[in-house]
Amino acid sequence: MKQHNVTQKLIDSHLIIGEMTPGSEIGIKIDQALLQDATGTLVQLELEAMGLKKAKTEIAVQYVDHNLLQTDFRNADDHAFLLSASQRFGLWYSRAGNGVSHPVHMERFGKPGKTMVGADSHSCAAGSMGMLAIGTGGLDVAAAIAGELFFVRMPKVMGVKLTGKLPDWVSAKDVILEMLRRHGVKGGVGKILEYYGDGLKNLSAMDRHVIANMGAELGATTTVFPSDGEIKRFLKSQGREEDWIELVADEGCEYDLHEEIKLDELVPLIAQPTSPGNVVAVSEVAGRPIGQVVIGSSANPGLRDFWIAGAIVKDKSVNSEVSFDINPTSRQLIQNMIDNHAFANLIKAGARFHQSGCMGCIGMGQAPASDTISLRTMPRNFPSRSGTEDDQVYLCSPETAAASALTGKITDPRDLEKLYGMSYPQYENPEMEIINTELLVAPPEDGSQIELKKGPNIKALPHINPLMDDYEVPVLLKMGDDVSTDEILKAGAEVLPFRSNLPEISKYTFSVIDHTFYDRAMESKTLYGGHIVIAKENYAQGSSREHAALAPKYLGQVAVIALSYARIAWQNLANFGILPLEFKSIKDYDKIEQGDTVSFKNLRNDIRDRKPIRVKVSNDSGKKLEFETKHTLSDRQINMLLKGGIINEFKEKLKS
Amino acid sequence: MKQHNVTQKLIDSHLIIGEMTPGSEIGIKIDQALLQDATGTLVQLELEAMGLKKAKTEIAVQYVDHNLLQTDFRNADDHAFLLSASQRFGLWYSRAGNGVSHPVHMERFGKPGKTMVGADSHSCAAGSMGMLAIGTGGLDVAAAIAGELFFVRMPKVMGVKLTGKLPDWVSAKDVILEMLRRHGVKGGVGKILEYYGDGLKNLSAMDRHVIANMGAELGATTTVFPSDGEIKRFLKSQGREEDWIELVADEGCEYDLHEEIKLDELVPLIAQPTSPGNVVAVSEVAGRPIGQVVIGSSANPGLRDFWIAGAIVKDKSVNSEVSFDINPTSRQLIQNMIDNHAFANLIKAGARFHQSGCMGCIGMGQAPASDTISLRTMPRNFPSRSGTEDDQVYLCSPETAAASALTGKITDPRDLEKLYGMSYPQYENPEMEIINTELLVAPPEDGSQIELKKGPNIKALPHINPLMDDYEVPVLLKMGDDVSTDEILKAGAEVLPFRSNLPEISKYTFSVIDHTFYDRAMESKTLYGGHIVIAKENYAQGSSREHAALAPKYLGQVAVIALSYARIAWQNLANFGILPLEFKSIKDYDKIEQGDTVSFKNLRNDIRDRKPIRVKVSNDSGKKLEFETKHTLSDRQINMLLKGGIINEFKEKLKS
Repeated sequence: MKQHNVTQKLIDSHLIIGEMTPGSEIGIKIDQALLQDATGTLVQLELEAMGLKKAKTEIAVQYVDHNLLQTDFRNADDHAFLLSASQRFGLWYSRAGNGVSHPVHMERFGKPGKTMVGADSHSCAAGSMGMLAIGTGGLDVAAAIAGELFFVRMPKVMGVKLTGKLPDWVSAKDVILEMLRRHGVKGGVGKILEYYGDGLKNLSAMDRHVIANMGAELGATTTVFPSDGEIKRFLKSQGREEDWIELVADEGCEYDLHEEIKLDELVPLIAQPTSPGNVVAVSEVAGRPIGQVVIGSSANPGLRDFWIAGAIVKDKSVNSEVSFDINPTSRQLIQNMIDNHAFANLIKAGARFHQSGCMGCIGMGQAPASDTISLRTMPRNFPSRSGTEDDQVYLCSPETAAASALTGKITDPRDLEKLYGMSYPQYENPEMEIINTELLVAPPEDGSQIELKKGPNIKALPHINPLMDDYEVPVLLKMGDDVSTDEILKAGAEVLPFRSNLPEISKYTFSVIDHTFYDRAMESKTLYGGHIVIAKENYAQGSSREHAALAPKYLGQVAVIALSYARIAWQNLANFGILPLEFKSIKDYDKIEQGDTVSFKNLRNDIRDRKPIRVKVSNDSGKKLEFETKHTLSDRQINMLLKGGIINEFKEKLKS
Repeated sequence: MKQHNVTQKLIDSHLIIGEMTPGSEIGIKIDQALLQDATGTLVQLELEAMGLKKAKTEIAVQYVDHNLLQTDFRNADDHAFLLSASQRFGLWYSRAGNGVSHPVHMERFGKPGKTMVGADSHSCAAGSMGMLAIGTGGLDVAAAIAGELFFVRMPKVMGVKLTGKLPDWVSAKDVILEMLRRHGVKGGVGKILEYYGDGLKNLSAMDRHVIANMGAELGATTTVFPSDGEIKRFLKSQGREEDWIELVADEGCEYDLHEEIKLDELVPLIAQPTSPGNVVAVSEVAGRPIGQVVIGSSANPGLRDFWIAGAIVKDKSVNSEVSFDINPTSRQLIQNMIDNHAFANLIKAGARFHQSGCMGCIGMGQAPASDTISLRTMPRNFPSRSGTEDDQVYLCSPETAAASALTGKITDPRDLEKLYGMSYPQYENPEMEIINTELLVAPPEDGSQIELKKGPNIKALPHINPLMDDYEVPVLLKMGDDVSTDEILKAGAEVLPFRSNLPEISKYTFSVIDHTFYDRAMESKTLYGGHIVIAKENYAQGSSREHAALAPKYLGQVAVIALSYARIAWQNLANFGILPLEFKSIKDYDKIEQGDTVSFKNLRNDIRDRKPIRVKVSNDSGKKLEFETKHTLSDRQINMLLKGGIINEFKEKLKS
């Protein structure tokens, strides 16, 4: 038998359809599913539409960590709906304020050797403990919960060899920032990143979570770590030693691609606005004045991450111009922070504590003031994601964040030695953590009689019309590289409460890029039956939110033409019946302009027959040109798309 | 010399103008001033407009406890502005997240024997420590900071004799709820409530704060407690023993009115929706299912209040249908709650912790779900103040709140004895509290060179036109009794960020009552030069927000005609140049309808000459009637009103 790496072992043990050949579509069995509330209301409505009796995954968990502010009835109504739906369909329910999904899942439910899909792009974080965990659109997760296979193009596996040991003041966040510095936000597209090597022995399970989590920012399909003795120690500290199995790469196994990081050589790094890929050494930007520091989110969720911040600010005062915000990952973490004095150290020094959850990471409060720099340990700094337009968000380690909170300017934490005569605080993982499961609600044996609680803002899914043969529609938007889902459909406290109300949330489509988009799209829908948009590379990077496909669809979007797509968004477009076309050449992108009219003929036949899709372009000034585009949809996806997407396919299945 | 009660001693020692005769206007010297952020931006803009060099009060403090959610740049910009203005004008600055103004002020700055005005209706809470502390409109506070006297009609003093000792499971909140049960939300109008008697010796300083705080809900001018040995103990526990002086009533002193509460006879009480005066015994409404419990706010801010909740839920689990929300009063309180295990007890049992501040009390998040009961230890439950329309908010003690969180329904805490075999936990005040002053920023010696930081949402105050002689304007709204400031200009996360932007916030004027009001008012302003509104008793009860006068003024409001007014609102109307007229008879109120036209002639002369103000009423159907109204403005107020309000008066003063 061939030697397998960890990724191959995970896929091989779950492969039902297809071959492990990079680029070909595979269908794998899914053991676990993760939902959060901003995507979950839609998923639960989909489960209802599908008529699901009971979840068929081993474990499915509905978390509530995004929409926590409750500025009116809508968020609280969503929480009540999600609890009722979780009870009805057999999901665990993690109540509002219990904690951020990814670290809580790792502590309570994650199991080495298992597969998971999650309706959140950072679901890949569970790869830290030897799982194959993939973030995807909600419909794919709904399908998995209903027992369907999960389909994805077999990625290439990039082996990332870690050697040595991190220097003082440098931590796991700097490892993933180094990956982003080297590879950028498209560097992981079509790849699974598998970490191995001697350097692993100095990285705790939660350190690995930090690295796996932000694999999403590289565009990777997922990240995989082995399940070794450290994972055993971690599970033991969570009272779950029995869930551990060993899962390590075979000696002599191979990787499709290779990378190596010498941990000893790393320095504190920082991602500048407005991309996680815009990474430089902290020392290069040191001295810039800051107005806010936020510690928290799934990108630095560990007890160590808060402890080190507490140890750095202990018996000192935060700068009076800096809002030093702490978002404790979970209620369990708070208990442990009380126990190891991190909480008191932070409070004493001037920290402002917030409830447990994603908070400012998803623009749910904590927006920085105008014209100020905000330093965050979070995973993303896309434009205006913080809630403030023209924001200046930098991403860094807890060490860099805490050091900067003290000085009031971006500070290399290594400078604390000379500034405060401080030596690097040494953290010891506790043998046992305090466990808190009070806000985890188990599903009942039989929930079939439980009524769904639908508040007035929770709207049923709309009917989706299948593609027609012929279109003559305008190009409503021409965009560049790396457009994020935050720009397609922004997050934040204003918009997130509409996640269960499609007509309302659609009004915000592309509003970050162009405030007139919604009106123009509604007009085009009425006058021409739809529209298209065009983009360059890596279209729709970022979150897994399927609203970024569903809302454009609702506004009549027929197709996107781009040079390339982020994986989840590409799947979401197809799932909701929008055609994800690809330019064959950048020259074609250059020739087509916003405001042009495009026409398609015999679209359905051409898609079905896998022919190139011809696009005719014209405008009022007599411009006329024509070019061919391609798509990389699988036969399964083509079938689904022609039916109008996965919801229509499920409905059809149900009828038969 | 005549024997004085505590109130008379406080006034007598600060009286500059007038006599201590109930009903006559007195002008008193002010020692301290309190601002919070929702009213403070306007006050600081007023200080700027007045050209203030440096605060002339002994202590003035700008707190930030209302607008903490920061869903976009506006709140954070306000915080930066308030810090810069506090430094410029010589105020202390309590940074965002440091804590709720009233308890923090009591712990750090309050001094027995001093007078204080606060731009927050609950400023009366400082009466708990032997201060004369009065909540009022921001302009009055700005004037006091600038060294002007504070004017108020000398209230009657109601002596409230407390005897005996509270039974187990009954606490200070039940004392003030008993006052509200007996007297209702108008019962304190024109009065100062002074507590005395043997019962005091069993009420701690923070217990007295609970009682003093909600004097605002009775409509009282303020509440006064003596400064006795307990206040000495309290100040010592805060490291401020040297700030204590004894201030007790003279033996044989007299009160204008009398009340007595036998503490032994009290039972757990609860205010039902939608008024703090709608009080019944908890046992009468026990068993109603609840969806949320919130502990916090200035109405139950003490370490004991959180400790008792923690002691009740210790080693138990909160009901899975209840969101058990905890708003720790201050960062100092969090440190002490860590120390006395209250924090761990609450977290362990399933509590959801939020940042320190007013939070849901002012509709800043924590809105309950549709059709659910929310139990809160807060001071107010006016309609939709929680952020949810048609909300069902009940007000109660921490004991009742914690008991109900366990059972999932409204529960008399005395039932915990049989339900859980629990005996009433006995609290001991710590000799010394942990003190945390990290987020308190002292004013510089000379701040005159400090530049004000004005973000793009911070707009200068508009010019205010003085009253004209003649009007013919529509009655845009006819209202009933007890209309609250929350209905005139609602609070909450949507509206509060506009507190420094009058044109924007004015769009919400009366929107709780009538969504068409703003459009109709703007139309009337254009067509007729203004409008009036009419109401019954106790118009504009509730908060001190002067926006509830300034925004109507901006929309062209000429006058209000009501049967009676809440004190602060009446002052605010006059301060901003709106005429607060009073019906002489309810029959006149009955005859006038929304949509009628009213006309005034020779208004300025009649006001100046203190003549009754004649109102002619007509409508399109030929209705014609006429009646006289009165006003109770002082000469000082008349002068000011005719100039267009206090801002114009200040500007005039500056010029001369």
